[in-house]
Amino acid sequence: MCQSNAYFAQDGEEELILEDVISVKPEGDKIQLVSLFGEQKTIDAKIRFIDLIHHKIIFEKRT
Amino acid sequence: MCQSNAYFAQDGEEELILEDVISVKPEGDKIQLVSLFGEQKTIDAKIRFIDLIHHKIIFEKRT
Repeated sequence: MCQSNAYFAQDGEEELILEDVISVKPEGDKIQLVSLFGEQKTIDAKIRFIDLIHHKIIFEKRT
Repeated sequence: MCQSNAYFAQDGEEELILEDVISVKPEGDKIQLVSLFGEQKTIDAKIRFIDLIHHKIIFEKRT
């Protein structure tokens, strides 16, 4: 399985948004995340970096 | 390993952009893709959907 963790990057820190993300779907300015366990979160953010080696998806909050 | 294949979605078809993508980095309106084998591609597109179960990253060409 290849789920990744989603984080907000802010001030050089990473804040966990959701673990075991299996899908990421931009919807206008929002992004919908769904985890392996069916948990859903919609965030007001943009994608900064996806790193599939380290299973990380880094988001940046919209300002 | 969790690399995914990158595709353009167009007219209900999927056109392969790059296999075994390990990183995706938006840079302004462009997106830089890097594969496990070091191949790099920069595309003028936006992310439509990331499906980590099926190892697919679907892009939409900017019009």
